[in-house]
Amino acid sequence: MGGDYGPQETVAGAVAAVTEGKGRVAVLLVGDAEAVQPELERHNLQGLPIKFIPSEGVILDSESPMQAFRAKPKASAIVGVGMIKEGYADAFVTMGSTGAAMAASALLLGMMEGIERPALGGPIIGLAPKTVFIEIGSSIDCRPSQLLDFAALGVAFSRTYLEVSDPRVGILSVGAEEGKGNRQTKEAFPLFQASGLNFVGNVEGHDLCGDRVDVIVCDGFVGNILLKAFESLGEGLSRYADAAAVGRDVYNMLNRIEYTGGGPLFGVRGNVIVGHGRASSTGISQAVITAARLSETNLAGQMEEELTALRARIAG
Amino acid sequence: MGGDYGPQETVAGAVAAVTEGKGRVAVLLVGDAEAVQPELERHNLQGLPIKFIPSEGVILDSESPMQAFRAKPKASAIVGVGMIKEGYADAFVTMGSTGAAMAASALLLGMMEGIERPALGGPIIGLAPKTVFIEIGSSIDCRPSQLLDFAALGVAFSRTYLEVSDPRVGILSVGAEEGKGNRQTKEAFPLFQASGLNFVGNVEGHDLCGDRVDVIVCDGFVGNILLKAFESLGEGLSRYADAAAVGRDVYNMLNRIEYTGGGPLFGVRGNVIVGHGRASSTGISQAVITAARLSETNLAGQMEEELTALRARIAG
Repeated sequence: MGGDYGPQETVAGAVAAVTEGKGRVAVLLVGDAEAVQPELERHNLQGLPIKFIPSEGVILDSESPMQAFRAKPKASAIVGVGMIKEGYADAFVTMGSTGAAMAASALLLGMMEGIERPALGGPIIGLAPKTVFIEIGSSIDCRPSQLLDFAALGVAFSRTYLEVSDPRVGILSVGAEEGKGNRQTKEAFPLFQASGLNFVGNVEGHDLCGDRVDVIVCDGFVGNILLKAFESLGEGLSRYADAAAVGRDVYNMLNRIEYTGGGPLFGVRGNVIVGHGRASSTGISQAVITAARLSETNLAGQMEEELTALRARIAG
Repeated sequence: MGGDYGPQETVAGAVAAVTEGKGRVAVLLVGDAEAVQPELERHNLQGLPIKFIPSEGVILDSESPMQAFRAKPKASAIVGVGMIKEGYADAFVTMGSTGAAMAASALLLGMMEGIERPALGGPIIGLAPKTVFIEIGSSIDCRPSQLLDFAALGVAFSRTYLEVSDPRVGILSVGAEEGKGNRQTKEAFPLFQASGLNFVGNVEGHDLCGDRVDVIVCDGFVGNILLKAFESLGEGLSRYADAAAVGRDVYNMLNRIEYTGGGPLFGVRGNVIVGHGRASSTGISQAVITAARLSETNLAGQMEEELTALRARIAG
């Protein structure tokens, strides 16, 4: 139901995903029958592993997720995440409200120990496709210990999903030295040093496209501003470039999420992918393939193991 | 003395500036005699309004400016800023230590009332050459009232230097609504609403290259990360673009400071321009021309008037 072009692009994306991921991906499409059925009829689904699961109502971005949760207990996000909880699905993909996906995930699947709310992260710059940024919008005014948890989650993602063998972790700050930064990053620095993670110290804006760091940890306030700034620059630059092909290249160099379709919620006990509201069927198909990969590599399990190991090292 | 290529590029930049700004710009070059004199001898200075003022020693980026101030009382930054204080110069331009320029300016010229330390700001994206970012690195963990002062300084800069008639002010945050942001921006919002400034609300990363806002206010922590991130992207993208000319264009689209040579210290009672350490003679020449313009338009005086007016509106 979600996304600016749902369910039209969502259904087309599902068809593309099962076709591309033949034998690997089956899709359960969750949504209002009167909106989804007409879209399903536009495709030839014969022999394709696509099933329709009816839900009632949608939780919008403008709603308080917790209130909507009570008012619309059969909303698509709740039914969709519920499919994981009940064992019918391995992963949930949504282009709808991030808040709704977060609330449904936290309540139905549960959070990993010590994690308060789902975190958002992943590569956000096409020029640096293996550099993970965490957090990028769900956690604002973080405590230093939360930043350290994000580091562990990011390390698990980098190792499991991006196949980086010993991910280097940096704190995003305004100078390389330990004494540089704001209160939050200065307090986080010694925690990172004592964490047993492969901590390379503070990194700066200069390091974002270099090869100094694999996991860049920041408060969601900073990460979200950066994420949106890169999107804005990508759009601005691609308008500027005369040849459309070059423009598209430049755009992709800056916008990784568009390219990969979406990113997982970190810290949730299950695989939930939140995509871009503006995603087309191609982006949605990518997000479904991404979800399959997360499930196959047991990302959530790897993240929980990394967190547990971190806590043991700190306690020891 | 300062800058990665000083004094060679600095002297060449001074020659370029007085040649380009004929009749408008005269330059006093401050530095160690044994370093500067050989460079002066490489140029034909006959008839050019360039004079050499000897100083002793340099305050380095790695030093504590306040300690260096006592240890090297004749250092180039101190002698240079002193030329303004003594009425021999209208503006001071440096490619050297920002900390040294800030300390010398604060101590010798004094700060505007209620401003604790010099602030850094200006356009930082070539795609948005009239969009002022303030603060971008000198003030970290700002109080909301400091953000409001920055807004007034940025408005004066936008109106006086960029000739925007009624500059629109926004707070950089993670959502357009008043309730979105971190503690700092949420507390700042009502202060901005009551300020009498042309406040358009929160702006996001998406708005950086658009036409919604003229003065973007943020904590120096966020501003500095953005500034360096844009530089990093510009370098990364221009390496990616195959044609060198396109690469240079893309680089300039992202790096405004390189293009304009440097930015003024805001809140100081005098015109002090801090340039990029890596600036070439072209960048240095631009910075000198910028300094002349700041002096001609009486930017510092306009800033102080804007601050006084702001305080009167708030008190009233």
